[in-house]
Amino acid sequence: MQTLEKTHPKLAELKTRLTEINDINSAASLLHWDQATYMPAGGAAARGRQLATLGQIAHEKFTAPAIGQLLADLQTDRTSLPYDTDEASLIRITKREYDRAVKVPAEFVARFSHHRTECYGAWAKARPENNFAAVQPYLERMLELSREYANFFPGYEHIADPLIEDADYGMTANTVRSLFARLREELVPIVQSIASQPAIDDTCLRQHFPEDRQLAFSHQVIAQLGYDLQRGRQDKTLHPFMTKFSLGDVRITTRVYENHLAQALFSSIHETGHAMYEQGISPEFEATPLANGTSAGVHESQSRLWENLVGRSREFWQFFYPQLQAVFPTQLQDVSVETFYRAINKVERSLIRTDADEVTYNLHVAIRFELELQMLEGKLAVRDLPAAWNEGYRTALGIVPSSDSEGVMQDVHWYMGSIGGMFQGYTLGNLMSAQFFAAALQAHPEIPTQIQQGNFQTLLNWLQTNIYQHGCKYTPVELMQKATGNPLSIDPFISYIRQKYGEIY
Amino acid sequence: MQTLEKTHPKLAELKTRLTEINDINSAASLLHWDQATYMPAGGAAARGRQLATLGQIAHEKFTAPAIGQLLADLQTDRTSLPYDTDEASLIRITKREYDRAVKVPAEFVARFSHHRTECYGAWAKARPENNFAAVQPYLERMLELSREYANFFPGYEHIADPLIEDADYGMTANTVRSLFARLREELVPIVQSIASQPAIDDTCLRQHFPEDRQLAFSHQVIAQLGYDLQRGRQDKTLHPFMTKFSLGDVRITTRVYENHLAQALFSSIHETGHAMYEQGISPEFEATPLANGTSAGVHESQSRLWENLVGRSREFWQFFYPQLQAVFPTQLQDVSVETFYRAINKVERSLIRTDADEVTYNLHVAIRFELELQMLEGKLAVRDLPAAWNEGYRTALGIVPSSDSEGVMQDVHWYMGSIGGMFQGYTLGNLMSAQFFAAALQAHPEIPTQIQQGNFQTLLNWLQTNIYQHGCKYTPVELMQKATGNPLSIDPFISYIRQKYGEIY
Repeated sequence: MQTLEKTHPKLAELKTRLTEINDINSAASLLHWDQATYMPAGGAAARGRQLATLGQIAHEKFTAPAIGQLLADLQTDRTSLPYDTDEASLIRITKREYDRAVKVPAEFVARFSHHRTECYGAWAKARPENNFAAVQPYLERMLELSREYANFFPGYEHIADPLIEDADYGMTANTVRSLFARLREELVPIVQSIASQPAIDDTCLRQHFPEDRQLAFSHQVIAQLGYDLQRGRQDKTLHPFMTKFSLGDVRITTRVYENHLAQALFSSIHETGHAMYEQGISPEFEATPLANGTSAGVHESQSRLWENLVGRSREFWQFFYPQLQAVFPTQLQDVSVETFYRAINKVERSLIRTDADEVTYNLHVAIRFELELQMLEGKLAVRDLPAAWNEGYRTALGIVPSSDSEGVMQDVHWYMGSIGGMFQGYTLGNLMSAQFFAAALQAHPEIPTQIQQGNFQTLLNWLQTNIYQHGCKYTPVELMQKATGNPLSIDPFISYIRQKYGEIY
Repeated sequence: MQTLEKTHPKLAELKTRLTEINDINSAASLLHWDQATYMPAGGAAARGRQLATLGQIAHEKFTAPAIGQLLADLQTDRTSLPYDTDEASLIRITKREYDRAVKVPAEFVARFSHHRTECYGAWAKARPENNFAAVQPYLERMLELSREYANFFPGYEHIADPLIEDADYGMTANTVRSLFARLREELVPIVQSIASQPAIDDTCLRQHFPEDRQLAFSHQVIAQLGYDLQRGRQDKTLHPFMTKFSLGDVRITTRVYENHLAQALFSSIHETGHAMYEQGISPEFEATPLANGTSAGVHESQSRLWENLVGRSREFWQFFYPQLQAVFPTQLQDVSVETFYRAINKVERSLIRTDADEVTYNLHVAIRFELELQMLEGKLAVRDLPAAWNEGYRTALGIVPSSDSEGVMQDVHWYMGSIGGMFQGYTLGNLMSAQFFAAALQAHPEIPTQIQQGNFQTLLNWLQTNIYQHGCKYTPVELMQKATGNPLSIDPFISYIRQKYGEIY
């Protein structure tokens, strides 16, 4: 890229402008991170305004006519460049994002950002108080704004499409709806069959595990997986997330339950999967639009691959369990690795998505996705959402939340993001994780044996080479084809679930 | 202000623009805070660039011709407004800052900001390694940049004047030099007289005090003083500081030495003094240039007032000492309050400014101030600075650092700020703290008795009314006159020192 830069001053100018925009967006990310970790309550009002200001400036700068002109000139001048060169990719991806961004007025961006902060604050207060009525007006406004946003992209097939496309390029409401339909067909009988078996005893996880030792053990695990802690760190928050301020500073957050061992441990591994993806992006892409994961789904495939296909595997615990026992001797000395393995893979029809097992998880997502679509379609009012949520759980999982805190208010997404486009990535990620992992195993059948030895390098290298380094140079569809030789399919996931849980149950 | 805003659209437009600039600067402050508290090492390079970007954007927006035009129009339209109305003050102070800002090119602002970040990183690495040679080139560049900055303000009497004026409006190198000369005359004999007395035994402070309990006790003290922790928080850092992201989010940082009780405790009270000043600014000023302390000196007067005139007083410890003993029973049960009081007020010719007692402190500052002037004057090269530093200590205090870590590299200021304008505020603050406190006592002679009872409300109210609420509406000279009825004088400080230490020694 260096050489081309020197020969093409317009590319250099484009990169200078993109770096400035990246820096503003990175500052905004830090403001968000701080808001979710350390900010005192009194900072909330100004923080909302500050985020809106930064969002508006970044948007104004990115949608400046000069950027459009540079992109047009570069496209004309560089038509001969091969599709997958870094330079052609930078121009192509920037153009794609530019064409979307110019459709949204700066005034709307500020208004939306401001409301997100307010709505997040209302949710953070209302959730512990189990007071949906307190957030309802905020959520109604969020729905209005989400619809207003979608309508900046006329010509959609479904009103959710523009929101979905922001997160998962190449996907539409109808495609995802039919994926969920096929998944439900496969998963519901599996869940029913498992529910007819004796329940697994997971009391070994439900003891008292002091916070500091949980955090220390998680820290040790994520470092060994390959998370570079010279370029990252972990803090506590209400709702775990990963965020990036530069390729040299990719952070994760977690929460700890002292009465349940799985929360901090698996959320740490999960967020580490996200973080290693970002840390692995080619340094050449730093501060450009290429330096991001390519979609919500592909991102989630990496968090879920490490959390589930690695972190909940028998091989993983053959290595780590003795260490965990050493950290919690009184709690675990009489618990065998097999008992522990079965406990962390217990399938249960439960209420909380983030605590759900691999088998039921996608049913949680299906409920949310369908509710999003119905709200956007105007078929479901926000005031009726809690009842519809509960009905969704009753139908798909046969259980009903006893409160809105563990029902409709459990996830932060609608309250700080948008209505629409927020959830399909989780299920796309689960499907992709199985397909990527199968491809890695096919290339390197020694991976499970290495995991037994606490060695994650071959797997990490494969992911690095085939996924991480590319940032968002390739679309999810292109990346899946390149990395696995096949288009996205639900088959590897279903086959993984059948094999693993057929053996456990 | 509300009414006037409605009647004057140009003021409304000015405030909208100033809010946007404020938000960018607040984001930069958070990036700084994070850099000094939680940022992993890998984030340093990008962070420097991000800070430079934000600084440049804020500078460009503040120096936009539209702001100059609005200010000119408002000055013409509003000449009839009384000087100390909020509106006239906003226009006046903004104009003053604007006139200074337009003299500095945006390109220089970015370059300076970038170098500050790099130099800070080099210092943070070099100090523990006692490697001045490693930072010398960075500091040489800092000197060049400081001179370049000063030269944007031609017509100065001394090249340090523009740098001093940035921090302490109304002060010049020559004024401060003569203040220091008079102080040396008064202080050196006092220090010599004390040095001829038997040394105070302060071993009670030099025991093992676990970090968590030190932090918990400090937290309790600063909350009782009146620091609103719903609008603030405390984190650990290498070099304590106060920072503000909004009037609702004013944070302090501290460092803890487990082998010395005074460090965390008094630095916490010190930074709390800074923080209460900012928290006490009129909410009407939020996000405008008025919402800042009025000078480095006045700011320091508040930190020192709380740290020394309150926090090292006998009355203060009559209240807090039993609580401190309860926190550290094994360490302090056999130490009387009088022994403790004398220990925390021990006068000693020592090497570290931030650990220095009230009597010798200003001699530490005098050394640094003189070195700054000489470097700017071209009479002292950076490579000769360590030797000059050591010679300064030998002359003023009769002692010499054994390493550059505890010598020329002990303070962060030159490495992340500028050479010039960095230190005079400390001594101005000490002088002002005594003068403000004397005025408060004159108005409310009951304050010492209230402090004995752990009640700081009357004092805080007096400071709030006479100093805090005004932000930077008044210059330091105006504020001193209004609050105390007199111009700045060294007499209250010398009189305080003579009385307090005449009794101790």
